[in-house]
Amino acid sequence: MTGETVGNNQLVFLFGGEETEGGADLAHLLGGKGSNLAEMSSIGVPVPPGFTISTEVCREYYKNNRQYPEELDGIVKEYIARIEKLMGKKFGDPDDPLLFSVRSGAPVSMPGMMDTVLNLGLNDVSVKGLIKQSDDPRFAYDSYRRFVQMYGNVVKGIDGDVFEEMIAEKKAALDVQDDTELTADDWKDLVDQFKKCYREETGEEFPDDPAEQLWGGITAVFESWNNDRAVKWREINNLPHDVGTAVNVQTMVFGNMGENCATGVAFTRDPANGVKKHTGEYLPNAQGEDVVSGARTPRPLNSYEREKSGKTEFATLEEEMPEIYQELADVFDRLETHYQEMQDIEFTVQSGVLYILQTRTGKRTAPAMVKIAHDLSEEGIISREKALDRVEASRLDQMLHPMIDPEAKQENKAVAVGLGASPGAASGKIVLESDEAEKLAEQGEKVLLVRHETSPEDIGGMNIAEGILTSRGGGTSHAAVVARGMGKPCVAGCGALNIDYAAKTVEVAGETYEAGEWFTIDGGTGEVFIGKMEMTEAELTGEFEELMSWADQYRELGVRTNADTPDDARLAREFGAEGIGLTRTEHMFFEDNRIDYVRQMILAAPDVQELRIQEEKLVNEIETAQSNKVEELEAALEKVRKQLEETLPEYRTALDALLPEQRKDFEGIFRAMDGLPVTVRLLDPPLHEFLPQEEAEQQRVADNLGTSLKRIKQLVANLEEFNPMLGHRGCRMGISYPEVYEMQTRAIMEAAVNVAQDGVDVQPEIMIPLVGVPRELEILRENVDEICQEVLREAERTIDYKIGTMIELPRAAVLAAEIAQHAEFFSFGTNDLTQTTFGISRDDATKFLEYYQYEGILPEDPFAVIDRSGVGELIKMGVTRGRQTRKALKVGICGEHGGEPSSVKFCHANGLDYVSCSPYRVPIARLAAAQAAIDVKEDLTAY
Amino acid sequence: MTGETVGNNQLVFLFGGEETEGGADLAHLLGGKGSNLAEMSSIGVPVPPGFTISTEVCREYYKNNRQYPEELDGIVKEYIARIEKLMGKKFGDPDDPLLFSVRSGAPVSMPGMMDTVLNLGLNDVSVKGLIKQSDDPRFAYDSYRRFVQMYGNVVKGIDGDVFEEMIAEKKAALDVQDDTELTADDWKDLVDQFKKCYREETGEEFPDDPAEQLWGGITAVFESWNNDRAVKWREINNLPHDVGTAVNVQTMVFGNMGENCATGVAFTRDPANGVKKHTGEYLPNAQGEDVVSGARTPRPLNSYEREKSGKTEFATLEEEMPEIYQELADVFDRLETHYQEMQDIEFTVQSGVLYILQTRTGKRTAPAMVKIAHDLSEEGIISREKALDRVEASRLDQMLHPMIDPEAKQENKAVAVGLGASPGAASGKIVLESDEAEKLAEQGEKVLLVRHETSPEDIGGMNIAEGILTSRGGGTSHAAVVARGMGKPCVAGCGALNIDYAAKTVEVAGETYEAGEWFTIDGGTGEVFIGKMEMTEAELTGEFEELMSWADQYRELGVRTNADTPDDARLAREFGAEGIGLTRTEHMFFEDNRIDYVRQMILAAPDVQELRIQEEKLVNEIETAQSNKVEELEAALEKVRKQLEETLPEYRTALDALLPEQRKDFEGIFRAMDGLPVTVRLLDPPLHEFLPQEEAEQQRVADNLGTSLKRIKQLVANLEEFNPMLGHRGCRMGISYPEVYEMQTRAIMEAAVNVAQDGVDVQPEIMIPLVGVPRELEILRENVDEICQEVLREAERTIDYKIGTMIELPRAAVLAAEIAQHAEFFSFGTNDLTQTTFGISRDDATKFLEYYQYEGILPEDPFAVIDRSGVGELIKMGVTRGRQTRKALKVGICGEHGGEPSSVKFCHANGLDYVSCSPYRVPIARLAAAQAAIDVKEDLTAY
Repeated sequence: MTGETVGNNQLVFLFGGEETEGGADLAHLLGGKGSNLAEMSSIGVPVPPGFTISTEVCREYYKNNRQYPEELDGIVKEYIARIEKLMGKKFGDPDDPLLFSVRSGAPVSMPGMMDTVLNLGLNDVSVKGLIKQSDDPRFAYDSYRRFVQMYGNVVKGIDGDVFEEMIAEKKAALDVQDDTELTADDWKDLVDQFKKCYREETGEEFPDDPAEQLWGGITAVFESWNNDRAVKWREINNLPHDVGTAVNVQTMVFGNMGENCATGVAFTRDPANGVKKHTGEYLPNAQGEDVVSGARTPRPLNSYEREKSGKTEFATLEEEMPEIYQELADVFDRLETHYQEMQDIEFTVQSGVLYILQTRTGKRTAPAMVKIAHDLSEEGIISREKALDRVEASRLDQMLHPMIDPEAKQENKAVAVGLGASPGAASGKIVLESDEAEKLAEQGEKVLLVRHETSPEDIGGMNIAEGILTSRGGGTSHAAVVARGMGKPCVAGCGALNIDYAAKTVEVAGETYEAGEWFTIDGGTGEVFIGKMEMTEAELTGEFEELMSWADQYRELGVRTNADTPDDARLAREFGAEGIGLTRTEHMFFEDNRIDYVRQMILAAPDVQELRIQEEKLVNEIETAQSNKVEELEAALEKVRKQLEETLPEYRTALDALLPEQRKDFEGIFRAMDGLPVTVRLLDPPLHEFLPQEEAEQQRVADNLGTSLKRIKQLVANLEEFNPMLGHRGCRMGISYPEVYEMQTRAIMEAAVNVAQDGVDVQPEIMIPLVGVPRELEILRENVDEICQEVLREAERTIDYKIGTMIELPRAAVLAAEIAQHAEFFSFGTNDLTQTTFGISRDDATKFLEYYQYEGILPEDPFAVIDRSGVGELIKMGVTRGRQTRKALKVGICGEHGGEPSSVKFCHANGLDYVSCSPYRVPIARLAAAQAAIDVKEDLTAY
Repeated sequence: MTGETVGNNQLVFLFGGEETEGGADLAHLLGGKGSNLAEMSSIGVPVPPGFTISTEVCREYYKNNRQYPEELDGIVKEYIARIEKLMGKKFGDPDDPLLFSVRSGAPVSMPGMMDTVLNLGLNDVSVKGLIKQSDDPRFAYDSYRRFVQMYGNVVKGIDGDVFEEMIAEKKAALDVQDDTELTADDWKDLVDQFKKCYREETGEEFPDDPAEQLWGGITAVFESWNNDRAVKWREINNLPHDVGTAVNVQTMVFGNMGENCATGVAFTRDPANGVKKHTGEYLPNAQGEDVVSGARTPRPLNSYEREKSGKTEFATLEEEMPEIYQELADVFDRLETHYQEMQDIEFTVQSGVLYILQTRTGKRTAPAMVKIAHDLSEEGIISREKALDRVEASRLDQMLHPMIDPEAKQENKAVAVGLGASPGAASGKIVLESDEAEKLAEQGEKVLLVRHETSPEDIGGMNIAEGILTSRGGGTSHAAVVARGMGKPCVAGCGALNIDYAAKTVEVAGETYEAGEWFTIDGGTGEVFIGKMEMTEAELTGEFEELMSWADQYRELGVRTNADTPDDARLAREFGAEGIGLTRTEHMFFEDNRIDYVRQMILAAPDVQELRIQEEKLVNEIETAQSNKVEELEAALEKVRKQLEETLPEYRTALDALLPEQRKDFEGIFRAMDGLPVTVRLLDPPLHEFLPQEEAEQQRVADNLGTSLKRIKQLVANLEEFNPMLGHRGCRMGISYPEVYEMQTRAIMEAAVNVAQDGVDVQPEIMIPLVGVPRELEILRENVDEICQEVLREAERTIDYKIGTMIELPRAAVLAAEIAQHAEFFSFGTNDLTQTTFGISRDDATKFLEYYQYEGILPEDPFAVIDRSGVGELIKMGVTRGRQTRKALKVGICGEHGGEPSSVKFCHANGLDYVSCSPYRVPIARLAAAQAAIDVKEDLTAY
């Protein structure tokens, strides 16, 4: 017979054992914790029994002016009696007391916001019973004082510090350091002190009556629903205030009541590698704290664990308590089957009876994450969809790069933390100049390039460095973007570094290090370490490959890569890239002696530009001039054209010299991508990026080009820009210097012809960057197309090629319908589009964007995750308007976002054809695309 | 009896005299020129008679394989007979030949695209008649050779250069320079040579028969409809190819046929000042060429002209030919009444008969434009709407500034031309440094500040300079924007200047000038002159004021000003500004000793920022930390807060010192704007703009602030940005350094309270710049509002104030609905919005934007004229979405576009409440707004 009202009005619910009432479906009444306990009980998991007072009671309590329903007292009494029966103990029994914990449990988790009281039921009498059972007076009095302390604090609002100070005084008086050095008597003495304090603070005696204690605890939990912390938390998280919390009253069980007791933690599978073996540790006759505190060495749960941990001197739980172990193993299987996930479990054996204290989804390494998801599916426990959904795409990165050995990390603490900008770890001798880095690398040294920030001039140094470390710039700074492209570890924007180029030193955490000393970086976490550290290698397992193949079956979005070299292209292809979405051509301009040709070309460029302006101006003036002025203007025009003819050869010679080099680059990439499309972006950065800023280097360039330092300096000054991001770059340069794009186009198509002759299936796509005005693209497209046709005519070949553009300016998104008239494909350059839409330079924003995220002004870094409400709106507009003009328009993105899972999902939801990302992110994109396709079936409107 | 088919099928139309057929309504048949001639005839203007062969004939000609309608030949014959009768002359008469011109005339003007033949009807016989009539054999043979030349070229396609070379050879043989030195015999000889050439080139004799000549001419004109030039021109201008041209056959009249002949040009009103007096010049017994060529000195038309020109030695036409003059005056009145505009007329008197050769709308100065529009309306000839519509708003600028005396300009040619960035003219000694400029100005010198580009540091120098001249930057560069704000002349981006700061010289056009030499600039045309030049002063006439008052009656758009000082505010108010739409506060930071306080504040700013980041980071970590970590984190937090407390005083002291200064600024502005709203923008530029870049100045600052040069250098390096336009500025700074905005808000509200106590009606509007994230505005709005309330509470006053934001980022336009939740007004910052929408930095784009305009890639500079299809779309989006949230949202613009007429019209059409522009542009905006309101009645969809 139970005392509760049946049905909707049931106020109290039992859990633990066969009489369990309720389950996961009653979370609105039982709260998260209570329904979970009921759920576990209902599948036969032995949880310490107890009962849940429903949220309905909480609501009634507040509704009725903090009065409980009349019948509640009687109901609680009955439930206590039922628990006493189940446990064979009595609440407040002087011989073997039943103790309770009282915990909150709201329908939506509010971690740490509300109150808890443990060890409820102890008093001067029952504590003796606890001593008797545990044979450990120190434990008993420590438990007792904890109860008094918690009760005073939680139920009566006494400042917790008051009690802590008394303990500190006690230790000082005894001249001991740690709580563990206090004896049973010391704790007993403190219990008295605490009670005295309680009396002074509240004007009441500490309650000895367990029932009174229980009601104090229950009321405190209900009251904590409306404490300041909890109210504020609900406000921040937009949760309703009128739901209320449930209260869970649960039997306390102890693993330190004798030799037939134990406590431990376990995983249903190995969290390190995902192998389907129970793992874990235990301690006989101990409390949970002992396992984690390190005071005693925990023992292996079973032989698998013993072998793995090398703790061969210990007996396992499997050997010591075979029946308990078997029961535990059964529970593990039951839990895993029920929750369809690997579980992390806390258990206690009290007097030969097993209790599961907690079960939750177990944390695991990335390889374990992949293997477990795969295996659970293969075992038929979850579907392939679910397996794919289970893998956190962003964590795949970890599997694809070497990592610092976890043990080495424990011994060597990071001296600074920057932004983990490109995953993987690397050790090397620090070098502050790219030239020097290259020299040292040639001598076989491992180097770490350390700079304020890198620029295209540093490509050589970055290429041979083990990793890159910068003091400025964010996740999409040059260093970060290039490093990710190269698959090299990079820590960016580590402001704690004080880099002195002149002195060749790096100061960090108060120490100064000379160039040549060893540093280690973790590009995943952003940590910087002094010295060389042990690494673990990356490894792609069969399960990973299989999971990826499942992903490919589900996903609808194409996945390409951003790759500038044949090596990158091959690597990306191994990772499953279905083509190249972005080949940047500017890096190629820095290789070997090419940069000299580039600079020779630039030397003449400003004159060429100026003359062309004059030419166009005169052409315009002639068109509208009065007839008597025409002659004069035509003479001027002729003069300008003559000057232009004189200036162009130097410029053209340089471009002619670059042509075969570029052609070679493209041939390599086309071969690596046989059968797949390759999108090549024509030159994008402003010309001044190819000029040296430092005088020594400027002198060298002057000597090389046979000109004066003064001319080089003038050139640098002439081309300098206040805001290079918004400067003379991309297609604007293509308009001013059409010969550059012509050379590149010719190189692309000649390369295509050459490899096609060797039987390679080549699919070139030429991409024109930074278009903001439809006419820009119209002009350039025509030029490019003409050259393509010309090369094919000369070679007597047909090759399918496409010409398209990047959409990376707000104006391009707005005018996408007009732009699509001249483009066969769009590729959203989300880096630049984010910069212009926000009006934020990624290189300058690190600090305030960081602050914005801490302050909650922006939920995420928009340079990492696509900003849906702003940039995303423009992308949607671009896609819609572009396809209005050209239904078959191919649309992708090639910004850094192409490898970020939630951004990939956004692309899927908005009908893009593909994403393109750096090679190491290709698997992430494949998985995220599959998850999006699976997700989208459930909710098409979420993105 | 006439031979033409009547009605729709009439092929030929007569004009001149009472028999005139057709008029302006038949332009589709008669073409522009033909219908105009008919129109003039029909209102009694004596044009030389002739006939028009309709466009229908042209269409038939092409349709029927280049065959004319059969009846055409007969019709033309009849029309020639009618003209002969009207003129009392015969076509080809050996005694007194009637000569014709044959000209094209399409329905839409195609200037210079098609062909013309003059003097048609001359041959070896009739040329004698011309000699007899004119008594001028040289004229007769010159006319004859011109005819042969034109006919050969136009009708037979002989290269014009062939004839020109023969003339050149003739001159060389005679050793003379000018055509005027050739005699009648020389020309006669050339006629023979030309005819010989004609024979050689065509294999035919030159036609002597006038009728054959005429048909040759007519056919040539019809053929020219499809010449390459004309076809291309129609393609460029999107005109149809199937309309065809008409052909006008008109009597040639000559003013050199004796003493009862004359020729002249005249205006119906004075084009210099608009006074209602006929003006003009004539020459007796002369050709039109003689009047304009300067070979003979033209005489004054009437006594008004004589007095004005000072040519007292000449008799006027009024005196010499009083009847003709009277007839002319009547025609003038008739024309002006008919065309409702001041006319520019060419006339010829042939043998005592007046002929009007051409009439067109007369060009005029800006003051004349205003006066004429005003007077025509007052005289009842045009409505006020039309008067307003007639005034070119953009030309008003000229009236409001001193200009270089036109005569002075004729004597002194410009050495270079830059961009006319701020109108008006100025002379001064060139100075390259702002400090020096200030020193010289204190000594009473007039200076012209010459810089590569100005920065906020130059405000002092700009303020005292007569004008500003820069070698870099465009129409919205710092120099241009500030100069316009100050109403000072500015020529920007004059690349021809080679400024050497070190040598203190300016090189231009091959000469080097030392600082201290006089230059003169014209900020309207962009011209740069060496030396000091005479100026004419600006003058605002009564007509101007009245016209402006009409404008105010029509316009619906408010007009405010951008003003940073009480002087500017007062000036703008005089020009009719209805409030301030933008007060920039940053310039105030440079005045006097304030900059030292600002720098003191900045000195501490990076530390404050860094500590705040750490603080927020720890706060966040604590919220989600495991309980055992909380203590450690809280200790760290406490430490950070302590450091912050130590750092803030220096920072706050500086701000406290700035407060009273800022308050004073605002008091002045509020008083000047009594009764009108004043929008103050909180600090916008990044902090580094307030730091000196040069070492000497850095040392001075270090000494002033009692710190080391090293620290200043570090600070400069720390705050440096790659793309300051997209950097840590605007509200981002307000978030990082809330104290700055707090100080400014307090200054604004305290100033408001102070002036209100003196009875001033103060209407402050506080504007938060560069918002891209709604939450930015939400936070700052709350802070600002709190301080406003606090100040009002302290003062026990109520003052209505508004808090709003600028919409100057694409993201702000997209998220306008959310932003409007926190804004009472929007002000579009179209400068920055244009920069971010296009991804173009105005400071770096001068060259390629110039090229873009010449190339036709962009129709206009988007920094001068709002880009409707891109930026305009975003503005529309911003207005619509903003008002969706807040119906009463006040919306204006405060970018440079606020004073550009077509942009003002755009603002009107899109429902903005006001535009704001620099003081001198206020009248332009008022007028443009009125024109928009008038326009819009006709076509609501045009914008």
